[in-house]
Amino acid sequence: MTNTADLHKRAVVQPDPTSPQHLSRQTGISLVEQIVQTVTARIDDKRLRAGARMPSIRQYAEANGVSRFTVVEAYDRLVASGYLESRRGSGFYVRERSPLANTAPSNPSPDQPSRLDIVWLIRNMFRQTPSQSVPGSGLLPNDWLDSELIGNALRAVSRQQQSVLLQYGTPQGFLPLRQQLQLKLAELEISASPEQIITTTGITQALDLVARHFLQPGDTVFVDDPAWYLMFGSFSMLGAKVVGIPRLQDGPDMARLAELAALHKPKLFVINSVLHNPTSTSLSAAKAFQILKIAEEHDFIVVEDDIYCDLHPGTTIQHATRIAPLDGLNRVIYLGGFSKTLAANLRVGFIAASHEHARHLADRKILSTMTSSELGERVVHKILTEGHYRKHTDRLRTRLAAAREKVSLQLEKIGMRAAAHSPAGMFIWADAGCDTALLTERALEHNCLLAPGSLFSPSQLPSTHLRLNVAMLSDPAILPLLEREISRLGQAGRDGIVGLHGKP
Amino acid sequence: MTNTADLHKRAVVQPDPTSPQHLSRQTGISLVEQIVQTVTARIDDKRLRAGARMPSIRQYAEANGVSRFTVVEAYDRLVASGYLESRRGSGFYVRERSPLANTAPSNPSPDQPSRLDIVWLIRNMFRQTPSQSVPGSGLLPNDWLDSELIGNALRAVSRQQQSVLLQYGTPQGFLPLRQQLQLKLAELEISASPEQIITTTGITQALDLVARHFLQPGDTVFVDDPAWYLMFGSFSMLGAKVVGIPRLQDGPDMARLAELAALHKPKLFVINSVLHNPTSTSLSAAKAFQILKIAEEHDFIVVEDDIYCDLHPGTTIQHATRIAPLDGLNRVIYLGGFSKTLAANLRVGFIAASHEHARHLADRKILSTMTSSELGERVVHKILTEGHYRKHTDRLRTRLAAAREKVSLQLEKIGMRAAAHSPAGMFIWADAGCDTALLTERALEHNCLLAPGSLFSPSQLPSTHLRLNVAMLSDPAILPLLEREISRLGQAGRDGIVGLHGKP
Repeated sequence: MTNTADLHKRAVVQPDPTSPQHLSRQTGISLVEQIVQTVTARIDDKRLRAGARMPSIRQYAEANGVSRFTVVEAYDRLVASGYLESRRGSGFYVRERSPLANTAPSNPSPDQPSRLDIVWLIRNMFRQTPSQSVPGSGLLPNDWLDSELIGNALRAVSRQQQSVLLQYGTPQGFLPLRQQLQLKLAELEISASPEQIITTTGITQALDLVARHFLQPGDTVFVDDPAWYLMFGSFSMLGAKVVGIPRLQDGPDMARLAELAALHKPKLFVINSVLHNPTSTSLSAAKAFQILKIAEEHDFIVVEDDIYCDLHPGTTIQHATRIAPLDGLNRVIYLGGFSKTLAANLRVGFIAASHEHARHLADRKILSTMTSSELGERVVHKILTEGHYRKHTDRLRTRLAAAREKVSLQLEKIGMRAAAHSPAGMFIWADAGCDTALLTERALEHNCLLAPGSLFSPSQLPSTHLRLNVAMLSDPAILPLLEREISRLGQAGRDGIVGLHGKP
Repeated sequence: MTNTADLHKRAVVQPDPTSPQHLSRQTGISLVEQIVQTVTARIDDKRLRAGARMPSIRQYAEANGVSRFTVVEAYDRLVASGYLESRRGSGFYVRERSPLANTAPSNPSPDQPSRLDIVWLIRNMFRQTPSQSVPGSGLLPNDWLDSELIGNALRAVSRQQQSVLLQYGTPQGFLPLRQQLQLKLAELEISASPEQIITTTGITQALDLVARHFLQPGDTVFVDDPAWYLMFGSFSMLGAKVVGIPRLQDGPDMARLAELAALHKPKLFVINSVLHNPTSTSLSAAKAFQILKIAEEHDFIVVEDDIYCDLHPGTTIQHATRIAPLDGLNRVIYLGGFSKTLAANLRVGFIAASHEHARHLADRKILSTMTSSELGERVVHKILTEGHYRKHTDRLRTRLAAAREKVSLQLEKIGMRAAAHSPAGMFIWADAGCDTALLTERALEHNCLLAPGSLFSPSQLPSTHLRLNVAMLSDPAILPLLEREISRLGQAGRDGIVGLHGKP
């Protein structure tokens, strides 16, 4: 993805984390920088652990064929950035670090999740390398997506008159895209005029704007349990209390939702109604209606995150009722985007809301990022208007269904049970029968990045579940690796879970 | 800028705000939408005032040659969005609105500024039309910028392999751009490795990330007085107290800064050291050093917003010492960007900070927008590496210096005094001798958008100042318009100011 990819690749394939690197004078990156980046990566993904002793400056210089000055400068920078510490007369050691420690609220309540693991996983996700297997990824692999489609649309956009880019643009986003989104939403029976739609820097910004508008410190926000982990960090940083509503096969546990709503009086309930992350289940009509009734009774806003919308195969294959069409964007705020189906780095997401909410959220957007760049929005607009999007998502759905079926059978064979059943979507929420945090550490040693269940738990409880991306499991080495490591962890892993829960 | 520009243009040139529009069936925008947008625009820029009666549905339909159903639907939407209200038996009226009312902190302290005016001006800025004069604008006009330069770079970027866009990219931003920024900063004697640099969605996101990291509700943040108004809204929304430090010819009033720092113990001081917005003055070396000493004594962070950096003519023409080079990015966080010199809609800004701060701010960025799109970052990178940027900014500086000299003379002739003297920069902070909020309302009736002084006041005090963009004053009608309206306001305006201050 960037020039660092090569470096990380080398870092990853080295069995000994302190062993020599293949430094290059051709990359345009200084040797100092290359050393810093490699050591940083090794520490961040825990192949170099706190307390480990680094090679001496002389050793490092000789092993890598660089001057000692280069190593001194790199070690100095690593000390400055808190990765290493220098112990007088003894050398350099990997430091104990908790990078997000001081971003926590000053008086964290005991039920606030720690964000360390979330950030740790996210950082690892961003450090994906071509050689790495990433069944934990939240995106489809490059060879499933269509870089030609993106490239053609971008070239068409780049031939347009570019004076439109010179000024700020409109805070609500590129109008022709919002008009296309109006049509797209109309197909879902969601009626939203362009002024009710605001483009955002991915769904991440959409959630952030909504959370900042509705949540005050101390407020409660409901999420699915399990749910997309990034939200937990985002809401916690606002001082909000994050409470999980157990997610069943056809939607939330309604009795729990009613009970917890009465108890906590939440401001928001963020839910994936369709192809829920991580279980890929979808909401039944009855539950959609009941959620809305409970939301009315306890006066909270339902934030319907529909990022997986275009991977849904239709209601003849899996039921799915969205909440927004029932409510007419009154107390529902609907979020969507194109990171899963087109290209995540275009960073195009959107919010559809009532006129009043849309106006407030557009003001929030101005104060956060002023406007969003129209480049990505124009690329998405081009693809939507030229009719290529529908064919592209048709192909994705067909391919996903086939991969899903194949992977499900393979998982059964190695004794991993899907915790929820779904015929569609990117993810299988599989029960590995052992502490998947430990499993994730083991797999990483084999260059395989998993997404352990504890990440998806709003209270970060240990878990035996894993989120597996079916499109990432084509590498035939992954499932045997999981089988082997699960069996090794076996009893120990189960004991760990029991011990952590404090129950037999 | 968008398809709405034409509509707004029509709206603006109509002398009677309820008079017929030229609705078009060719724009691809529904007639209902066209009516909604036009009425919305007229209400937002106050040509249609609260309480005004709208034409009846029949009148509106006949005057515009559309069906009554169309008008009914448009009026209904305007009622739903809170722009109009329907009075039974009497018709439709423009509603009293305070759009940001419920975004205010629940217990606003009396010294918190109202954000209504800020949002009002910003919305108007975004509604600029080709026919409008905008001496209040914060950007250079399109014909001063270089859309060819942007277009060529974008076309080059669009010919690259687009698979890089399929995944999220790196949270810190496109690495080659950060390497270019390292070189650019080195020229200013600011030493920052690429991992200390984070790209942002314009300087707006940079400030937002910094504010969210360092400020808790109730904390105090210092800003220049006057200063860039958008910050006030952004900081207030976080529950922070915004305190202004009077800005003099060579930097802040140091006695005031020391006194207020002891009193308020601020967390941050946000300052434009070079070509301060709105006065275009720059910091002296002595004051740069003293600010740092006071920051150390009272343990606050200096946020050096250097967005006007590349418009500065060099220290032989105007003194300018940045604070970051003195401090080595220890307690200074340096912000920069390309909205003023290249293209605002690329949305490319950046933060340079200590390793520790950079790590935290990158985590904040992940939770706010995940990553930023690399498209704009690649375009800026292309322009920086190909050496066109320096020539382009040379031309801008030369042209600005000439325009500045000419405008200064013209202003003197009409009796408008520059409140601060500067040989460079985009802005003149001029004293009109009357309440410039009133002047702004008058000028808007003549399709001329001003930036009144009260906007730039952290406490939103009435002001006789205006921020004039020298590059926007080429229209020979503007200064005569100002002269005429100032003279009309004359004594009344001065009385207004006195009255508002509560002093004779």
